Amino acid sequence: VTSEEGLFSGLFARGEAARAASERAFVQAMLDFEVALLRALGRAGIAPPAAAEELAGIADADRLNLPELGRGTGEKGTPVPALLSALREQLGDEAAAYVHTGATSQDVVDTAGMLVARRALAPILDDLRAAADACAELAREHRDTLAAGRTLLQHALPVTFGLKAATWLVGLEGATAELARIADEVLAVQLGGAVGTLAALGEHALEIVADVADQLGLAEPPLAWHTIRLRPAALATALAAATGVMGKVARDVVLLAQTEVAEAAEGGGAGRGGSSTMPHKRNPVGAVGILACAHRAPGLAATILAAMVQEHERAAGAWQAEWPAMLELLTLTGSAAAMTRELLTGIQVDPDKLKADLEATRGLLMSESVATALSPALGRTEAQRLVERAARDGREFREALLDQREVADALGPEGVDRALDPACYLGATETLIDRALARHGARAPAHD
Amino acid sequence: VTSEEGLFSGLFARGEAARAASERAFVQAMLDFEVALLRALGRAGIAPPAAAEELAGIADADRLNLPELGRGTGEKGTPVPALLSALREQLGDEAAAYVHTGATSQDVVDTAGMLVARRALAPILDDLRAAADACAELAREHRDTLAAGRTLLQHALPVTFGLKAATWLVGLEGATAELARIADEVLAVQLGGAVGTLAALGEHALEIVADVADQLGLAEPPLAWHTIRLRPAALATALAAATGVMGKVARDVVLLAQTEVAEAAEGGGAGRGGSSTMPHKRNPVGAVGILACAHRAPGLAATILAAMVQEHERAAGAWQAEWPAMLELLTLTGSAAAMTRELLTGIQVDPDKLKADLEATRGLLMSESVATALSPALGRTEAQRLVERAARDGREFREALLDQREVADALGPEGVDRALDPACYLGATETLIDRALARHGARAPAHD
Amino acid sequence: VTSEEGLFSGLFARGEAARAASERAFVQAMLDFEVALLRALGRAGIAPPAAAEELAGIADADRLNLPELGRGTGEKGTPVPALLSALREQLGDEAAAYVHTGATSQDVVDTAGMLVARRALAPILDDLRAAADACAELAREHRDTLAAGRTLLQHALPVTFGLKAATWLVGLEGATAELARIADEVLAVQLGGAVGTLAALGEHALEIVADVADQLGLAEPPLAWHTIRLRPAALATALAAATGVMGKVARDVVLLAQTEVAEAAEGGGAGRGGSSTMPHKRNPVGAVGILACAHRAPGLAATILAAMVQEHERAAGAWQAEWPAMLELLTLTGSAAAMTRELLTGIQVDPDKLKADLEATRGLLMSESVATALSPALGRTEAQRLVERAARDGREFREALLDQREVADALGPEGVDRALDPACYLGATETLIDRALARHGARAPAHD
Amino acid sequence: VTSEEGLFSGLFARGEAARAASERAFVQAMLDFEVALLRALGRAGIAPPAAAEELAGIADADRLNLPELGRGTGEKGTPVPALLSALREQLGDEAAAYVHTGATSQDVVDTAGMLVARRALAPILDDLRAAADACAELAREHRDTLAAGRTLLQHALPVTFGLKAATWLVGLEGATAELARIADEVLAVQLGGAVGTLAALGEHALEIVADVADQLGLAEPPLAWHTIRLRPAALATALAAATGVMGKVARDVVLLAQTEVAEAAEGGGAGRGGSSTMPHKRNPVGAVGILACAHRAPGLAATILAAMVQEHERAAGAWQAEWPAMLELLTLTGSAAAMTRELLTGIQVDPDKLKADLEATRGLLMSESVATALSPALGRTEAQRLVERAARDGREFREALLDQREVADALGPEGVDRALDPACYLGATETLIDRALARHGARAPAHD
Repeated sequence: VTSEEGLFSGLFARGEAARAASERAFVQAMLDFEVALLRALGRAGIAPPAAAEELAGIADADRLNLPELGRGTGEKGTPVPALLSALREQLGDEAAAYVHTGATSQDVVDTAGMLVARRALAPILDDLRAAADACAELAREHRDTLAAGRTLLQHALPVTFGLKAATWLVGLEGATAELARIADEVLAVQLGGAVGTLAALGEHALEIVADVADQLGLAEPPLAWHTIRLRPAALATALAAATGVMGKVARDVVLLAQTEVAEAAEGGGAGRGGSSTMPHKRNPVGAVGILACAHRAPGLAATILAAMVQEHERAAGAWQAEWPAMLELLTLTGSAAAMTRELLTGIQVDPDKLKADLEATRGLLMSESVATALSPALGRTEAQRLVERAARDGREFREALLDQREVADALGPEGVDRALDPACYLGATETLIDRALARHGARAPAHD
Repeated sequence: VTSEEGLFSGLFARGEAARAASERAFVQAMLDFEVALLRALGRAGIAPPAAAEELAGIADADRLNLPELGRGTGEKGTPVPALLSALREQLGDEAAAYVHTGATSQDVVDTAGMLVARRALAPILDDLRAAADACAELAREHRDTLAAGRTLLQHALPVTFGLKAATWLVGLEGATAELARIADEVLAVQLGGAVGTLAALGEHALEIVADVADQLGLAEPPLAWHTIRLRPAALATALAAATGVMGKVARDVVLLAQTEVAEAAEGGGAGRGGSSTMPHKRNPVGAVGILACAHRAPGLAATILAAMVQEHERAAGAWQAEWPAMLELLTLTGSAAAMTRELLTGIQVDPDKLKADLEATRGLLMSESVATALSPALGRTEAQRLVERAARDGREFREALLDQREVADALGPEGVDRALDPACYLGATETLIDRALARHGARAPAHD
Repeated sequence: VTSEEGLFSGLFARGEAARAASERAFVQAMLDFEVALLRALGRAGIAPPAAAEELAGIADADRLNLPELGRGTGEKGTPVPALLSALREQLGDEAAAYVHTGATSQDVVDTAGMLVARRALAPILDDLRAAADACAELAREHRDTLAAGRTLLQHALPVTFGLKAATWLVGLEGATAELARIADEVLAVQLGGAVGTLAALGEHALEIVADVADQLGLAEPPLAWHTIRLRPAALATALAAATGVMGKVARDVVLLAQTEVAEAAEGGGAGRGGSSTMPHKRNPVGAVGILACAHRAPGLAATILAAMVQEHERAAGAWQAEWPAMLELLTLTGSAAAMTRELLTGIQVDPDKLKADLEATRGLLMSESVATALSPALGRTEAQRLVERAARDGREFREALLDQREVADALGPEGVDRALDPACYLGATETLIDRALARHGARAPAHD
Repeated sequence: VTSEEGLFSGLFARGEAARAASERAFVQAMLDFEVALLRALGRAGIAPPAAAEELAGIADADRLNLPELGRGTGEKGTPVPALLSALREQLGDEAAAYVHTGATSQDVVDTAGMLVARRALAPILDDLRAAADACAELAREHRDTLAAGRTLLQHALPVTFGLKAATWLVGLEGATAELARIADEVLAVQLGGAVGTLAALGEHALEIVADVADQLGLAEPPLAWHTIRLRPAALATALAAATGVMGKVARDVVLLAQTEVAEAAEGGGAGRGGSSTMPHKRNPVGAVGILACAHRAPGLAATILAAMVQEHERAAGAWQAEWPAMLELLTLTGSAAAMTRELLTGIQVDPDKLKADLEATRGLLMSESVATALSPALGRTEAQRLVERAARDGREFREALLDQREVADALGPEGVDRALDPACYLGATETLIDRALARHGARAPAHD
């Protein structure tokens, strides 16, 4: 798992999610599960109530030796037996005897994973929402800022920068909504005992499951999901999809920041993205980092999807592969979200360059507009033929158009000028931006 | 795309989804889009109403030359220009001029993809629901059929076969619910024109989008999603997750069908899974086929997730990669669903062998049960120590247990016998099965 | 499997490899295996020699009903039993009795897969070599054509277009060499009988294996590799790596072809990549197609890598997933190779625009050059400081440099001019191009 | 990157490769590159020779602050600028000025990655070779130990355990040979300067590259491979393929260790794989760990394959994603190799249970043997018909066979007994084992 203190942390473990999805945080979540279970056992009359409080007093991941737990993972296939040994050494006999009663290692690990996910999703959702707010701001500010719309990286038709931002906004909000749904509905406690029957918990078993779920703020599943991995799969794929959306935004920014395009640049203090030997460079470091995360997410999601084929009542290999991959994915997604927030709040848009680039095709970008304007009079087919002829003419497009009698007759110079004006061929752009902003509405930031 | 007429179709293109997700069906869906668009244009007063009906009269994929469209895809990057040429050849001038007005190639392809997905999901959902029904039947029938619960493929604790079936049931229903949600909420029309502004459609643009969505039974998105690929990603990952759940069921069946285990076998008429040279074999062909599909789904889902990073207003490469991968994934998932339905409706369970296998550890499987029974009297730690000693004794477990004075005092022979009885250590098994069946309830098949 | 006659064939099944990797070609390869085996059995005295010739007379894939074989695949998990039934119907009793003796279904399928791979690699290697030849031509022609070198899509330092082409050349040749190695050394016959012991072939078993390998032009493995899947994995990953290299070339071309950059464009006859409504567009359709293939290859390779974990003497699911994925991968790679060849032989490079774009940073691109020139006199640190100051000055870079006394003293106007001349800061560019061309040497095309 | 001190290290970071592929080791490799470069610059007369030795004196990763480098990675997109700052603080002015001359960040990172790979491959190759030795030992020891060969997890025909081990051996050796080839031929130095021209190094540039390569024990590439990623791709896919082979071995062991099968078990000291609450369990922890690694490798390899599509002279995102994924993959593969070595040197095979399980089908396993024996007399078709009839008879197979007059006439009781004797139907098993051992030969361990 990429650590928030590691060599590549500035790209892959940025923001708070990295800490929330760290291995130490995972240990803390395992401890939180054991405390919640022991409290529930106490309330059910199975364990002495004092045992839970004794455990709570020492249930601190910082007191545990991570390398030792790691070695224990090798001995037993999960870190839980080593964790329990370490805890029992610090507990009195009674508490030591009752801790973990009725649970199996997978219960601890799966519930801890879900808890870590919930905790890491909080900063991820924060950052995504702030990034969406920044998009909304851009959409408002640049509602009318003309820009070249590009398909296959070729100029196609005019848009406004506000529509680009509104499109990003809808994407970021969609990703956010799905992750929020997962946080609320999909993340669930796991408690089933060795084979899912809760056999060691007696008649109060299901109450105990409900109690633990309630304490930990996780959903209560109908059955143990130890071998039905829809929940991890939904989490992993929603994380990867969110990273994909952020990657789309970042790819656009990298392209807009190209030396020849220079329509937008990243913000950032002195030195960010600079090069000592090439002082003219202003590398889009944030966007590059987001793209790097987006490159890594699909493989991790595929790993978790492929791990769904699990044997009998506990898998031999597939299950063990899941959580380390998930922690990496949570960390990467969190890092991408933190960088996307920075990127979108700091981005510097150059309306003049955006406008200037619209001229790159010397009007040809407006061909469809001219054809559309000509169609009522000449029919669509003839209109396209005339426009195409003018476009291939080599001279100035406006001149070549007006030189064709049919065009001149149908539109006249003003008509041609209007048809060549990008601002007059934006279609539903404004309404679409409004739609996006209206949907964003309720979630708009305080300072609006 | 694996064809329903291809060499491997029996494993990878079984059932109706293969036809619904075929390339020919994709062509039909493109035609359906063009008809719906032209109808909407007619209602908006942009095109003559007769044009749509003229188009509808010829909009039949069987009239089109697939290899020719394929070549056209190479010329332009999408099959749409070739499709339009072919259509226009068959239409009168007016209809020819108006067809496709306001749309861009991506609009046609994306909407067609969504339409194909909706049509292919219908048989997939049918098969998944029938498979779930069969699971419910198994859960009811084998509610009390004892079986060994296995973790890491080792006997762990007793379960019932009904609980295994109930677990499968919850998994299949979860996958079904997610796919149904996607069919209802996520599959959406795409219509934005070249860059998403709907510039060529004038003031009625948004009405036309709504009209087309309504005609085709797809959701209307707030903005064009040409470069925000959350919708394809959600579809692809839900398909892969469904295949993963089916893979879990199939893996269990393959393991249960092993020569040494033989607790279950696939049904199927004479010859299914048989071998001419090894007549004793009864290969779990259906389960193998499901697993083969489950092996292929994650890579396809990863492809679609990785393709989310799309440039500007139309991507150069990522977008073009999506739909062929999606058709494959729809086909595979449909095939897996058809095989899962067959597998679960035909599966032959052998209660006697299930019971017999419970004896494989000569009682040691019940160690936890004995320890749990001893705990109130002796404390958990001491109870485990005594059980472990007996387990390692080498003699018959019951005898070794009773030979320890503390055990004999605490439980007596009857107590030990009860603790060694798998049927007495099933915990919440019955309630859990009931829960699963109750959730299934409303959707129970007619013949219940 | 994407068919050469399918809807997306123009992008994903271009060139001859698609036919060579088709399902029908797979059937032919299965037939070729059975003929070779029967011939070997004849020579070993196990089968009557006439049987092989009788089989050879009907061993034509076009005589077989693909949908029927496909249904048979569903019955038995492989197409082989249905294939044998179909053959036996057409054979006399004796030949019918001897066909397939000693082989198992997996032998047929695996050997057919290898044979198909060898046949599909031939056009792939052809196309890759022709693409490399075209690169060599470009490297020669544009050895001195100045161009901006770009890192993170920002101008960094000057290169020549020839160096870009030489870099592509080295990549294409590396990919070609690895695929050629695999064709020669890795593709091997599979023949082991049901469990790899060749039990049904008696004392001549190993001779028969060698004979079949020899007839089919495949390597003879030391043991059957039925469950050791290094060979398919090596093939799949080399295909994906080749596609990755082609994707790199294509990505560069898409970027060079951007409206604002326009340093290169795809060739192609009238209409290729054109848009009827946007006549100014010249879409880089070939590069887009290559990128689309490159998007799909990694997921397929991952599927085949993940399928290496195979059970006992024949896997239940993993093996069955392999060949359909491999056929797709062969088809995609072949299509990418065909398009890369077209792209590189047709590419139109604009030396003037390349040169003009070098000016985009108004000399700042040469900062490192100036600093390097200043270093001997002023030390590296001071040199960089002065250059950075001039770069941030806002005025013309040359002027800002010369205004600093230390710079003027150290280099004088001519020295500054030389340091600002891209042609003087190309380092080892020429030697590197020569190296690449020399390595290419022996394989240079006839017309050179 | 999974750390050798982390929570899951016992499964995913076992053995020495984890340390060799750690982020700290990566930093050390970056330092080693800078020292080698400065030495080469000294020999070329570009830098003062003393500078390199001054740098060598402080070039110790333990002196550097990893979190600080991590933050620097976020500022600049690579850890190199922060590394250089940290170094320069500790160097005199002259050495500080000359360090890193002529190199770009990517040179440092790519060469360090290759160096780390070479260092991590050493223990990986050691472990793989020791695992192969253990396989050879098993193949020798169990050359004649009869076992059931299983296809689709069903008994098919007899093999010997020695053949299973020989098959594993060939697989492990194949994976080893490929990794060794990569260590020797593919791992190469990267040194090209910002855009691959080596512009800042003057006339001695190529000598310097050769010198650095020589010092570091890496190959010298013809051109910089900054954007041609065949080398990382070859490394990653060979690692994943090796993990796949190990996964095959592990899957077999998990299946052999099943409670009902119990033909083999893992070794390991007291407590390894044990369960406190289920003392009868002896979990195949090592095999499970290997499988968990094998689950994670394909996704990582796919990430690196997908990252091959890199822009211009340095990629924005794809390149940055590579090395963190590679370190993870090296660590996982190393862990799998360490566990495979442990598994195969400790494995406990139960010849009696292997033999007993052969009886599970009460002779039906020998059907093909009987049919083969009958074929000369009765023809293959009739032979199969009679065997099939006897097999479906329900009685003891031998009896049912002999009851058919044709069978009795053709073979007699002794003939039937011989045909039913697994030891007489092993085909080329012995020769195949010999082949595998002979290939292993030269590399056999000293103690043989």
